[in-house]
Amino acid sequence: MLKFDENVYLENARLTYETRDEIEKVADEITQQGFKNIFFISVGGSISLMWPIQEMLKQMTDIPVFSEQAGEIILTGHKQLTKDSIVVMASKSGDTKETVAAAEWCKEQGYRVVSLVGTPNTPLEKASHWVIPNKAKNGVEFEYMQLFMLLFKLVHNKGQFPAYQKFADQLEKLPENLLRAKEKFEPIADEIAKTYHKENYNIWIGDGEMWGEVYLFSMCILEEMQWVRTKAVSSSEFFHGTLELVEEDVPVFLVKGEGKRRILDDRVEKFCQQYTKKLVVIDTKDYELNGIDDEFRWILAPTISSTLLVDRLARYYEKYTGHDLDMRRYYRQFDY
Amino acid sequence: MLKFDENVYLENARLTYETRDEIEKVADEITQQGFKNIFFISVGGSISLMWPIQEMLKQMTDIPVFSEQAGEIILTGHKQLTKDSIVVMASKSGDTKETVAAAEWCKEQGYRVVSLVGTPNTPLEKASHWVIPNKAKNGVEFEYMQLFMLLFKLVHNKGQFPAYQKFADQLEKLPENLLRAKEKFEPIADEIAKTYHKENYNIWIGDGEMWGEVYLFSMCILEEMQWVRTKAVSSSEFFHGTLELVEEDVPVFLVKGEGKRRILDDRVEKFCQQYTKKLVVIDTKDYELNGIDDEFRWILAPTISSTLLVDRLARYYEKYTGHDLDMRRYYRQFDY
Repeated sequence: MLKFDENVYLENARLTYETRDEIEKVADEITQQGFKNIFFISVGGSISLMWPIQEMLKQMTDIPVFSEQAGEIILTGHKQLTKDSIVVMASKSGDTKETVAAAEWCKEQGYRVVSLVGTPNTPLEKASHWVIPNKAKNGVEFEYMQLFMLLFKLVHNKGQFPAYQKFADQLEKLPENLLRAKEKFEPIADEIAKTYHKENYNIWIGDGEMWGEVYLFSMCILEEMQWVRTKAVSSSEFFHGTLELVEEDVPVFLVKGEGKRRILDDRVEKFCQQYTKKLVVIDTKDYELNGIDDEFRWILAPTISSTLLVDRLARYYEKYTGHDLDMRRYYRQFDY
Repeated sequence: MLKFDENVYLENARLTYETRDEIEKVADEITQQGFKNIFFISVGGSISLMWPIQEMLKQMTDIPVFSEQAGEIILTGHKQLTKDSIVVMASKSGDTKETVAAAEWCKEQGYRVVSLVGTPNTPLEKASHWVIPNKAKNGVEFEYMQLFMLLFKLVHNKGQFPAYQKFADQLEKLPENLLRAKEKFEPIADEIAKTYHKENYNIWIGDGEMWGEVYLFSMCILEEMQWVRTKAVSSSEFFHGTLELVEEDVPVFLVKGEGKRRILDDRVEKFCQQYTKKLVVIDTKDYELNGIDDEFRWILAPTISSTLLVDRLARYYEKYTGHDLDMRRYYRQFDY
């Protein structure tokens, strides 16, 4: 596969899954201490991968769950955020400005923070009450895996996700499945990027537990790393404005999930098939998850799309645009 | 003013404000019955004007507040939504498909719905427990006024917005101020539309209690009614992707509010001043609210931007594009 090392990937998977005990211990400690609600607080890509889990939790547990942008909440506070809350944060670099500021702000006020930190000895680590080392060099799916274990163990401890044990056991088999998904998607990614890399405007659509995926890939990858213009909209809201922009030569990318809102994606697909010749459907259902029960597929769907898009499709955009994924003109280049 | 009747506007204002007693009675009845949390459920423009109020409530009250898209929640449910919840809905036409379906779904399950309904004897009215007639022919500000009275009275009844009485009294003076704001903005709207109506891509930015405004105007007006391409992003998230798309000839529209997150808008402004020659700032601070205390300005800011954008700027886009605001190619033209 293009610019991809299978051994590194499987090593990242191992490093991730071996944190299971550590994560579950944190979850158990939080449960023992008690908590009233959960706040996801981060920015950009890190907050957008928490949204799918928030969507799942709405359906799985009566624990109230909120998500807030780190740069915003320190300005306004939130009346639901108290010492009885658990704050979940993540930063790959461990030094994301707004996230660190929010963690320190939480600490000052006695709010308990549990963080996924990708780099040891960084400011986020110091400001967090509990730290989960995110040792995988890259791969959003590994962050998902850690968040799944943390959050679903908390829910399980409340007696609300009885299948947790089975789920977490089977999670070990996810990376090898994702590897096969990548392989299957490789020629498709090549074809999509070859066909669409010069398009100056792209509509990206998804819903529910797939919305964070659409948000992340369109903004944090295509916009930030490829300077490609996008409009992201949910499958349900697409019909309240953006649909009017669809014409036969307007590219529409639909990311279909496997949860209860899939029929909203179906509706978009049916509509777009009629009005654009440039419809691309990324459907997680096309990829097998061997050794994993079907009842967990809707939860794991965002890890499939993530491994296909953030990793594979981005690489092929890079190949055809010639725009290095690491090149930025503004972001983190200077103070602003 | 272009295609604008001052007398009709003031009559709409009168029809809106005269519902105050009725609204407060509903709020008092809800308080008497008791409730655990509030759910805003609607679609498109109607849900986006509830978001600013949700943002305000986070800072004003410890009542948990959630917002959900009507088409989505009936598929998934939400564990926080129970018979102890109060559901707030709105539909101008009273027959918005997803909203009506959600209201009926709520009714079946014994969830109490209070709706702002623009058209009498419509399905939404029939499915609602309480109905607040939204008699104003148009003007998003009038829906804001009614929602302010309903929600803030509920909060006041909990002892958490002691200034409610003064706020609601002064609200009567809002429309005449908005009328003057429109007049002041009229030549500016003309200039903006003349300059930018042919741009094929526009970045729209705002945050917090202004986010719904940015979302609504970019998607439900520019995209739906003018077929103009937009990317909307919050002031905080702009720096996590979209900033890389700013170039000297890329139009950026920044809608500045007056709440605690204004410094996020300032940061966007400072950045964009350096990297695009096409920055347009809509700042509610430029418009007076005579007879209204300064402490309420951050709450009323979305009504100012709404009256300037949805009403005035849209009209001037129509003037220059020649695209009738009522013309759609797909929306409500046939089943999909």
